[in-house]
Amino acid sequence: MVVILKRDPDKAQVESLMHWLESKGIDVHTTVGKNQTILGLVGDTIHLDIDLIKALDIVEAVRRVQEPYKNANRKFHPQDTVVKVGNTQVGGGNLTLIAGPCSVESEEQIVEIAKAVKASGATMLRGGAFKPRTSPYSFQGMRAEGIRLLGIAKEITGLPIVTEVMDISQLPLFENVDVIQVGARNMQNFELLKELGKMKKPVLLKRGLSATYEEWLMSAEYIMAGGNEDIILCERGIRTFETYTRNTLDVAAIPVLKNLSHLPIIIDPSHSAGRSALVEPLSCAAVAAGADGLIIEVHNDPPHALCDGPQSIRPEVFEGLTKKMAIIADTVKKVYAK
Amino acid sequence: MVVILKRDPDKAQVESLMHWLESKGIDVHTTVGKNQTILGLVGDTIHLDIDLIKALDIVEAVRRVQEPYKNANRKFHPQDTVVKVGNTQVGGGNLTLIAGPCSVESEEQIVEIAKAVKASGATMLRGGAFKPRTSPYSFQGMRAEGIRLLGIAKEITGLPIVTEVMDISQLPLFENVDVIQVGARNMQNFELLKELGKMKKPVLLKRGLSATYEEWLMSAEYIMAGGNEDIILCERGIRTFETYTRNTLDVAAIPVLKNLSHLPIIIDPSHSAGRSALVEPLSCAAVAAGADGLIIEVHNDPPHALCDGPQSIRPEVFEGLTKKMAIIADTVKKVYAK
Amino acid sequence: MVVILKRDPDKAQVESLMHWLESKGIDVHTTVGKNQTILGLVGDTIHLDIDLIKALDIVEAVRRVQEPYKNANRKFHPQDTVVKVGNTQVGGGNLTLIAGPCSVESEEQIVEIAKAVKASGATMLRGGAFKPRTSPYSFQGMRAEGIRLLGIAKEITGLPIVTEVMDISQLPLFENVDVIQVGARNMQNFELLKELGKMKKPVLLKRGLSATYEEWLMSAEYIMAGGNEDIILCERGIRTFETYTRNTLDVAAIPVLKNLSHLPIIIDPSHSAGRSALVEPLSCAAVAAGADGLIIEVHNDPPHALCDGPQSIRPEVFEGLTKKMAIIADTVKKVYAK
Amino acid sequence: MVVILKRDPDKAQVESLMHWLESKGIDVHTTVGKNQTILGLVGDTIHLDIDLIKALDIVEAVRRVQEPYKNANRKFHPQDTVVKVGNTQVGGGNLTLIAGPCSVESEEQIVEIAKAVKASGATMLRGGAFKPRTSPYSFQGMRAEGIRLLGIAKEITGLPIVTEVMDISQLPLFENVDVIQVGARNMQNFELLKELGKMKKPVLLKRGLSATYEEWLMSAEYIMAGGNEDIILCERGIRTFETYTRNTLDVAAIPVLKNLSHLPIIIDPSHSAGRSALVEPLSCAAVAAGADGLIIEVHNDPPHALCDGPQSIRPEVFEGLTKKMAIIADTVKKVYAK
Repeated sequence: MVVILKRDPDKAQVESLMHWLESKGIDVHTTVGKNQTILGLVGDTIHLDIDLIKALDIVEAVRRVQEPYKNANRKFHPQDTVVKVGNTQVGGGNLTLIAGPCSVESEEQIVEIAKAVKASGATMLRGGAFKPRTSPYSFQGMRAEGIRLLGIAKEITGLPIVTEVMDISQLPLFENVDVIQVGARNMQNFELLKELGKMKKPVLLKRGLSATYEEWLMSAEYIMAGGNEDIILCERGIRTFETYTRNTLDVAAIPVLKNLSHLPIIIDPSHSAGRSALVEPLSCAAVAAGADGLIIEVHNDPPHALCDGPQSIRPEVFEGLTKKMAIIADTVKKVYAK
Repeated sequence: MVVILKRDPDKAQVESLMHWLESKGIDVHTTVGKNQTILGLVGDTIHLDIDLIKALDIVEAVRRVQEPYKNANRKFHPQDTVVKVGNTQVGGGNLTLIAGPCSVESEEQIVEIAKAVKASGATMLRGGAFKPRTSPYSFQGMRAEGIRLLGIAKEITGLPIVTEVMDISQLPLFENVDVIQVGARNMQNFELLKELGKMKKPVLLKRGLSATYEEWLMSAEYIMAGGNEDIILCERGIRTFETYTRNTLDVAAIPVLKNLSHLPIIIDPSHSAGRSALVEPLSCAAVAAGADGLIIEVHNDPPHALCDGPQSIRPEVFEGLTKKMAIIADTVKKVYAK
Repeated sequence: MVVILKRDPDKAQVESLMHWLESKGIDVHTTVGKNQTILGLVGDTIHLDIDLIKALDIVEAVRRVQEPYKNANRKFHPQDTVVKVGNTQVGGGNLTLIAGPCSVESEEQIVEIAKAVKASGATMLRGGAFKPRTSPYSFQGMRAEGIRLLGIAKEITGLPIVTEVMDISQLPLFENVDVIQVGARNMQNFELLKELGKMKKPVLLKRGLSATYEEWLMSAEYIMAGGNEDIILCERGIRTFETYTRNTLDVAAIPVLKNLSHLPIIIDPSHSAGRSALVEPLSCAAVAAGADGLIIEVHNDPPHALCDGPQSIRPEVFEGLTKKMAIIADTVKKVYAK
Repeated sequence: MVVILKRDPDKAQVESLMHWLESKGIDVHTTVGKNQTILGLVGDTIHLDIDLIKALDIVEAVRRVQEPYKNANRKFHPQDTVVKVGNTQVGGGNLTLIAGPCSVESEEQIVEIAKAVKASGATMLRGGAFKPRTSPYSFQGMRAEGIRLLGIAKEITGLPIVTEVMDISQLPLFENVDVIQVGARNMQNFELLKELGKMKKPVLLKRGLSATYEEWLMSAEYIMAGGNEDIILCERGIRTFETYTRNTLDVAAIPVLKNLSHLPIIIDPSHSAGRSALVEPLSCAAVAAGADGLIIEVHNDPPHALCDGPQSIRPEVFEGLTKKMAIIADTVKKVYAK
């Protein structure tokens, strides 16, 4: 951490800051310039409250030099984390394809789609039971019943299931769920993150609509600090000034996060674009850029889906997609085993 | 709602769409042009799922014409909503000044600040008990104990209290709280919003970091649809490309929201800027633009505050501020009664 | 175009609007609802000034239904435009790799790099002569002399050259230049665009830092309206709230623009990321998503480059990249002929 | 400037960097930590090319500590700059109201509006002759003839005139113009800025749509580095994810820029919002926050204006506005002398 002092700072205050820092086990190196003085802080600065220092009268600015996350940091954990889900592995050179409908609508629907996507090469089933909808008047999901139906589809197809939690109180219903999804709007629901940290179940952590890489990794850190290290990051598009697409897929997040962290990262091309015609090109881009997997909305009857219709693709389109993914995976040396 | 069909749409599908719309009680008016056909939908389109229509093969685009919110819409509720809190009123031509520390730290601290801000002209006390912090290693608030201490300050000063809830499970602790705050990161925590809709307590609903006006009002609509109409909107800065300030205060939100909705709107100049030197100019701007109030972080000892130090101002600065606000309030015909 | 009228509009004003529209050759279809009246405008609305209509007292909102560009619109020009540059072709199923240094620094430097990138598979040479720099104190390019040196490199290697123009007055120097580049900061320098419309030389039009797809295509339309149809679009990253990367590559721009327009689109992975380590993954993503080409900064000695060092890659890295691109191009059925 | 080195950097390269820095007259102070080494650079770092240092293999990151602008920096020029225009002064505690139509349309129109806004209290006349329009099919302004007509209005009313330049080649026409406006889209037209630096005429420099404070001041620095110090900054709204308003007025820019720089700053409430109903509240906000002036679009017949109609107000509305501004100016201790 680097602390830049204002011109002619009060000497007593500077000394008091130095003592406080040293009491926290931090070494301070001072660089005196004509217009300002720079303090170089060396040691374990992760627990220093940067805002406290910024608030001092003598301080002009504080710049972090070290990342504020530790468990999620590749520097302290150079090997890729591989998250085991049922018989599949996410990360570590594997390509994982997760597919399924936006919402679970009925037993027939979810079982039929589960069979179809399994046959096409999906290795995990997604499906919304609790649905975060912008409008209180839109369909809110089948909730507990939706999770029960996902369980039936899992039993029939053997596909592990991933579904979204929206509140701590729903967690008891997730016993049979293989991967708990945290949606973009809950990425900084810190109470929920802490609760997930106590569980022994993989978490698929979506990036918030306007979350920086660092904030995203800090949310992973919340879960990891609690003891749960099985986290799959998921980029799903960020909010920008462009409104033609629902969100803007930040494809650079893949190599950047792989560099900053050891956690696997997958892409949601369906929500990124909000348009079914863009699912394939964005999937190609993501896998080519090194993504560990994709989570794709597939519906047997998109125009009648109860939500998110415009971005779902049909099973037959998904099948064509998996074939293309297999080829690109090969190019970038990923293992894609149905 | 306006539905734009693709060129040469399948006639059977168009008819099927028309029938479906008519079955929902919607009148459809068709405009046929050389390059496209436009359907004008007239009736109560609020309950139509726009995504379902967008998903149809024959549809190129759908444009809303009517706002998707009803309870929060000024068109259906022309009079200003006035929210009563203790002896004060928020909205309806009043200027409300809410002040207090970022976090409750001790009984002495909160009581002392409460007395100071009351003396300077605050009519409500703020103070964080549950603190949403980006890092799991930062101070997380005094939680239940913090709410208890706020209660003591309320008893001593008579000031109603406003404090933030972070999870449904915390709500039972809020019995003695006068206004429940929903933070920016929870603006789309829909389960929490539904729960607040069932309560009989005013809610201070902060705008999400990257929430549009419409999404913000839809979150208000979630609460109102449950029966709780006492909502105070709070603009606290949005996320933009500019990083010099913590957020960018969207001052236009004041007149825009006043036009779209009948709900009162206040401004948080402390979080908008993240710099104490900007609190006064932004407060002046907000009141001049017609804000119904301000919520300001005031600390008796900013450099030692346990969080958000850089943006807190001292009680004596707050006192000068209230005097300036009184003059500007007068100019824009607001009533500011300490 | 759809015009939404306010509730209870003045009848005389509505009629006057209708007459005006009809005088412009527009057919108007009216849909009367309880809360609003919608006018469906059919005909050639491209020349209607949307702002004039919005300004009327009786109008609540105006929604475009048709794109405001015609020459650049795929609807009116279904075949891909193929831009011929020397012996190469940009678009139409070809993959074009343009490479070279950020700035031309000396004859030795540009000739050496030109030879190296040609040997590795580049089919065009880039190099900055006029350099748009944020700071007046940074190196501003070799200017006319830089263009002369590019000409020497072209003569020796046979590679066509692309370089940026910053002002109309520089155009006479571009006679020997094969593709004139318009930088992101000049995308809406309308006077320059008009001038380029009169030329008979391909233009590489970079997307502005915060330009929407529509604005970008409108800038292409400016050039095309003047008679020059040889435009290559170039996505180079947009400005978002994320500051870890220099810009955010909007990879979805590739399939979206291919759908909206017939113009070829290439990607600049160097400026998108601003980090050399990200050039390869972003190049892979771009080609996999269907880009017609890449424009990459390659430097023989990055740490001593006079500008944009952090994002340049070395010739040997570029060579590895071209091999990977050839494989991905094959997967997505592009022809990459060195 | 602070340079953060990678873990275990090559010693020879570190030494070579140190020598190079010292050869530039920079003092280097080294802080060695367990995980990284920090170099504190002291001296005149404005001319150091930050990108060159970032590009080195041994460097992890570089953080600026000092602002990269000097002439525009309040640290080196503590007194407010006051720009003299005709008999009025911009900055230094004065409130300047500039008003006029979006476009000059005819002699009658510009003279009539000029008289009206003068009578209401404007001290300068604005009017577009060269118009930057997104569409090549929209009205492009009266150009040279527009400037001539502005001159007539100036002669009749005595109001100094401000109008926009779009290209260097137009500058000879600006002899009789009092303030040359650089539009948002040209804020980084560096060749134009350099040309303006050589002139002896005040420049009104609008902030780019997505320009940071620093980039904006760097553009001012371009002009000032050429010798022209009479710059008036103008905030006109930035581009964000919110599309309800045309742009988002960043009202915090006023106190921030006043702190970073000594240049006067005015606000354009018309373009910020793009809606005439928002002009008054945003004007109030701007003056209350300390703006040195306003530039407002006023039209005698908004619905027939040839461009930007929705945001223009009528002269009688402008008159009411000036009265309100006079009161707020008084509150914040600005001198508003018609």
